[in-house]
Order: sequence, then structure tokens, then C-alpha cells
Amino acid sequence: MFEQILDNVRQRAPLIHCITNYITTNDCANIVLACGASPTMAEAEQEAADIASVAGAVDINIGNLNTMTVRAMHRAIAAANQAGVPVVLDPVGAGASAYRMDTLREFFSAYQFAVVRGNVSELLAVGGAASNTKGVDAGAADAVTEENLEERVAFFKQLSASLGAVVSVSGAIDIIASPERAYICRNGHPMMSRVTGTGCMLSALTAAFCGANHDQILEAAAAATAVMGVAGDIARKKTEEMGGGTGTFRVCLMDAVSLMDAQTLQGGMNIEIR
Amino acid sequence: MFEQILDNVRQRAPLIHCITNYITTNDCANIVLACGASPTMAEAEQEAADIASVAGAVDINIGNLNTMTVRAMHRAIAAANQAGVPVVLDPVGAGASAYRMDTLREFFSAYQFAVVRGNVSELLAVGGAASNTKGVDAGAADAVTEENLEERVAFFKQLSASLGAVVSVSGAIDIIASPERAYICRNGHPMMSRVTGTGCMLSALTAAFCGANHDQILEAAAAATAVMGVAGDIARKKTEEMGGGTGTFRVCLMDAVSLMDAQTLQGGMNIEIR
Amino acid sequence: MFEQILDNVRQRAPLIHCITNYITTNDCANIVLACGASPTMAEAEQEAADIASVAGAVDINIGNLNTMTVRAMHRAIAAANQAGVPVVLDPVGAGASAYRMDTLREFFSAYQFAVVRGNVSELLAVGGAASNTKGVDAGAADAVTEENLEERVAFFKQLSASLGAVVSVSGAIDIIASPERAYICRNGHPMMSRVTGTGCMLSALTAAFCGANHDQILEAAAAATAVMGVAGDIARKKTEEMGGGTGTFRVCLMDAVSLMDAQTLQGGMNIEIR
Repeated sequence: MFEQILDNVRQRAPLIHCITNYITTNDCANIVLACGASPTMAEAEQEAADIASVAGAVDINIGNLNTMTVRAMHRAIAAANQAGVPVVLDPVGAGASAYRMDTLREFFSAYQFAVVRGNVSELLAVGGAASNTKGVDAGAADAVTEENLEERVAFFKQLSASLGAVVSVSGAIDIIASPERAYICRNGHPMMSRVTGTGCMLSALTAAFCGANHDQILEAAAAATAVMGVAGDIARKKTEEMGGGTGTFRVCLMDAVSLMDAQTLQGGMNIEIR
Repeated sequence: MFEQILDNVRQRAPLIHCITNYITTNDCANIVLACGASPTMAEAEQEAADIASVAGAVDINIGNLNTMTVRAMHRAIAAANQAGVPVVLDPVGAGASAYRMDTLREFFSAYQFAVVRGNVSELLAVGGAASNTKGVDAGAADAVTEENLEERVAFFKQLSASLGAVVSVSGAIDIIASPERAYICRNGHPMMSRVTGTGCMLSALTAAFCGANHDQILEAAAAATAVMGVAGDIARKKTEEMGGGTGTFRVCLMDAVSLMDAQTLQGGMNIEIR
Repeated sequence: MFEQILDNVRQRAPLIHCITNYITTNDCANIVLACGASPTMAEAEQEAADIASVAGAVDINIGNLNTMTVRAMHRAIAAANQAGVPVVLDPVGAGASAYRMDTLREFFSAYQFAVVRGNVSELLAVGGAASNTKGVDAGAADAVTEENLEERVAFFKQLSASLGAVVSVSGAIDIIASPERAYICRNGHPMMSRVTGTGCMLSALTAAFCGANHDQILEAAAAATAVMGVAGDIARKKTEEMGGGTGTFRVCLMDAVSLMDAQTLQGGMNIEIR
């Protein structure tokens, strides 16, 4: 599973246009490079449409909005929709402020997204359910568990149908859902939430995988999640061996994505379809 | 000393709202996570008040001001003051430009800060004394030394009284002063000044410690400085063992903060009270 | 060769004013520190002139323009030109959008640059030749090869004459050209292009070297390129030994620049003059 998806990213090396936030943009660019794609982070409204329309995919991340970047996002998404370029949306901190929710509402009413990817609190907020976001982190009460998994899967399949987009939810248990089908992924480690931007990086990685696999968006999104999860497992093991902390873990995570091959992915991933 | 302070950060995991600069914001977010707190770096004026008012503490860093971030800072500080949320101010590069001094004057005339933390040149400039800042780095002539320590301690105690805020000054010898009492800390290594953002990181760490210890601001600020200094000592030792340079040192510094426990802190810190 | 150049950077520790992009600014600041100089990344138009006019050199990087930073760049370059401070220009993504080309045209018509440094696609675009930029990466078809080297050297010598600036072109084979003389450098490794910002870092390093060597701009630019190339070779070797990927490589690259001495540089560099 996913060999072809992974191979397409390396072979096609798509240009990925990210308009993201200045906190994690360096990590996003580096993870796009690590998986074999080519990032461009241009966010001037003067050039956003030019660049988005020739990209393999566009990654929009609302982690740190301001008036100027919002304008650039509108231009980039509109141009991408026009040109048939898939757009991944990361609704960072949805529910944390009215400004973010208003911006998201504008986006959903005007544009089409290929994937909406975030943590469970963010996706619950996007879906209009009660959520308990803590700044940009998921609230503990919202977590996907073995107990509520069935219910959550149903909720996100429905959300996928209503958004017309694949819904990719990360946490201890990841759910990547289309209206009919969901991948459930159980890789990764809590240490990933002690490094800033692992969610943003996964969105950029998802865009890279979608950019090289336009006709398999659900599988591309699931493969990106699996790669990140397995990379997290590898990084955790290596960090422990080295006696390192979160600094070392962050370096090892990038290493593991850059060194990932089909065999490592197959051997490491814990994924099922529902 | 400081066991309870450290434990409170881990147990309470406060939300820390940082409006800082885009050069070091990733490191600031990562160090807040490393110590066990939860960062949010939102700087849109549209949401700054919403987020600051529910935070455990606010960290304001003037390392790279622009018209938009200054507006967001005003909203965040005002909201924090209103809600009783402690605000840490890092007057980066005070004295380097009229724009920075004007912004600081506006802040001090309108708001209340819990801690003002910077290098010695910055704090001398804030205190209206002659200073020799070199861009954002302290001038050598301003350094706190064993010879001028007594005099510097008296100056910063007085500055603390006039600002109504704890004054936290970092360098080879650190001084953390209230009007009546000062902690003197002699940890850390010159290599820390060869990695950008170690000062910004210490301010974010100070905010995290204050956010979990609202009623012990002086001790929280001193504990944050001690943690950073001991982490610097550990990172230096590890970097030497590995034959590394400033890149490795930076990774090891983050590791050491994320792995810090009360025993390591007690064993490593060199602190006195005057 | 270059011992004195390197030594001057360490001894004089010039203040380097970088107005760059938020994607790689942290790496730029860290590499300026790693080589022994002192970075300041201020980009507010209110202070850009104040800071540029007292700097050792100014580094202007158009990797992520917006209306505000462009205004700050104009002020900084004008002030630097007035004060005789050398300015390094990195025309990131020249050719990728009309906005970038228009901004460059304004810069070249109004100001004087000491060095224009970029990848081959960017410099071809600056020189008015056909180019094949891929976002911010050089197009494969544009690469400098042993076959087209003679022709490329002639082109960039001529471009240097017409711009009145040293032209520094990086890739598998680097060319650093004045109208009469060019250094050809064959250090470095393709892995450098799998870490974001290595080009931006080289521009910042070039500014640091020029800032400490005002009267030898061509040699300073060539030395900066040689240091970066040799550091890339060392980092590649160390990364392989450690079984690391792009995350480890990035750390080792910074290490190698911070640990670089004249002997290592002499022993490692592969440079000729044409």
C-alpha cells in the first residue's frame, strides 16, 4: 500500500505553494524538501495567484493570519481552484478566535478544498460540533479514543461529504475520511505534540503527496499521515537511544521523513480501512 | 529551591501567548513546549485580546516591530492587564533605534508589566542610563562583572521599583531583581550568545514560569534564568563531547530544557540572593 | 588564500543588517553568528535606515516580499549607499513572478550593489537571458556544467560589468565574477539543495565576509562561497557517518561553518581563477 503514491512524490517532485505561518514555515519548507517535492512559500498578494496556478498543490495554513496573508490566501485558492490545483487547508486554532472562524466560513463558502487537515478539536469546530481547543492544541476531552472511534469516524465521513473534501484528523489515532471510506492510522508518539509545527508539517506533507497524486487524494492524504506517523516512531526510538530531548527528536523526525522508503513504511505502519 | 516552581509549570501547563519576532518565534514556541507549557503565537490585532485574556501569561518581544504587530501588542497587553494575566516584556534592541524607544515609552506609560527581561545594554537603556548596544547584542562595555556587580544590583533594584516590575538581566552574570531582593545567577556559557534567540527563548521561558506561578513572579523569573543557564552548561558539555559547533549546541540546549528536572537543576545551578 | 579574509570576519565581527524572508531568517541569523559576525534582522521601515547606515554590510533577500518589507528595503539600501556600506542582493525566485522582476528593476535603476548572489536561474533572469526557474529553485536546464562553463563565465563577467557588482552564482559549480576575473568553486553537495535556505544563508555569509573586507569584495564573496562549499562537504560526510538525513545535515552544516578555520578551508576547497 502507498508504494506508488510515495514513488510519485519522488519522481514528479511537484512544486508546492505553501501560505502558512511564520512560526513553522521553515519546518514546512524542509519537510516538503525532505519528501522529495519542491516548496515555495510566497505570500505576497501580488504574486500568490501567479504561483498557485502553476503549483502541483497549494497548502493553506491559518496558524497566524493577518490582513495581508488572508488576501494572498484568497488569491491563491481562487487561482488554484480555477486551474484544478488541489488545495489542502489546515484550520489551525479553529475555535480559538472569532477571526479564525470568520475567515474559515469565507473560505468554505467561496472555494473548493481537496483536503481539510487538522487536530480533532479543530475539525470538530469546523464541523460545527462543540470543541475544547487550547490555543492551537487539541483539548484532551476531544481526543479520538478506541471507545469513541466508531462515532468519530461517522462524524468525519459526514463532514467530508458536507465539505466536499477529504477530512484528515491527526492525534493518537488518526482518521482520514472520505464520505464512503476512512483510513485509521495508529502510528506516532505523544512527543510529536511537544515539538511545534508537527501538525503544520503534516499539512505541507499532505499537500506534497496530493500534488504528485491528483487522482488519489484520499490515499495521498492517508499516505502522508502514515509517513509522518512512522517517522515519529523512528524518531522516538532514535531519540531514546541518544538520550536526547525534544531538540534531538525534531532533527530525527526530519531525518526519518527524508530517509523514508516503501519498505520502511510498510514495515512500520499500522493502518486499517473502515 | 525552585522545585515547586518547576513542578507547577509541568502540572499546570499554562497557555502562553507570545507576540514576538519572526526570527526566533519557532525557538520560542519550542522552548515553551520543552518546559511543559503550551504556546500560542497569534499576532493578528483581530484576535490578540481574545487570546491574551485567557492565557496564563503573555510574552511581548520587540525584536522585529512593525505597525501591525505593535497594534496587536497594545491589544494583548491591555487585555492581559485587565484580566490579571502577567506580562513579560523583552525590550530587544532598546537603544538601537528611536522607533523601539518610542514604542517602549508608550508601553511603560500605559501598561503594567510583571517582568522586564533583556540583556544589560537593553535594561540600561530602559533605565535611562548610557548604554552601548550593538544591534540586538549587548555591548562589551556594559557587561555585569564581579567588579561592578554591587552597583549594578542597586541600579536594577531601583529600576524594578520605578517600573513596578521584576527586572531580569541576562549575561555572564545574571541579575533578577525586585525592589528589595535580587537573585544572582552564574550559570550559562558564552556559546549561548553565538546562537540567535537564546535571549528571546529565555523571555518565553520566563513567561511560561510566571504563567504557572502567578503569586511568585520574582522566583519564577529567577527559576527560568537558572533553568536556561544550567541547560546552557549541559549543552556546552555535550557539544564538546560530540565535537559539534553552534548547530549541535542549539539542539542540545533545547534537549536540556526538555529533560530538566529538579535534581539536575539543584545540582547545576549557581545562585545567590542579595 | 582567504586566511586574512576569514580572520577579518572573526576579528572585526561586523554588524550585518539582513532584510530577508521569514522562512529562512533564523538560519541566516545563525550563520552570521556562526562565522563570527553579529546579525540584526530589523525590517521596520521606521528603523531600517538607522540600522543599515551603521552596519558593516547589508543583506537584501527578496524571497518573500511584501509591501512593507519592500519599503524597508528601499530605505535600508538608500542609507547604505549613502554611507558607503556594501549591499549584497539575493534575487530569490527572480523570474518566478512579475512582482519580483519589477522590484528588482526598481532596485537596479536606483541603487548600487556590491554583490548580486543567487542560483543560476535567478542570475540568468537578472541578466535578461532565458531562464527556467522552478519556484525558488534553479531549473535543471540552466545548470552550469563543465561543457558550458566557459560561456557561463563570460556571461557573468559581462553581467558583473553591466550591474557594476560582483556576481556570485551558486550550484554544483559556483562562479564568482567581476568584469575581469572569476573564481570557480567546485565544493558542496546536492544535499544542500534539500535543505531550505542554504542559498539565503550563503547570501548572509557573503554579507558578513564583505562587511569585514570592504576593499576586497570579490575575494570576500569567493571566500564565503568556498566556506559554505567546504562546510557542505564536511556536513555530508558527518551525516553519512551518523546515518542521518536532511535534519542532521542541516545541523552539521551550521556546525561546520562555526568550526571552520583557515587550515580546514585550505585543505578542503577546490577553487580556480579564470
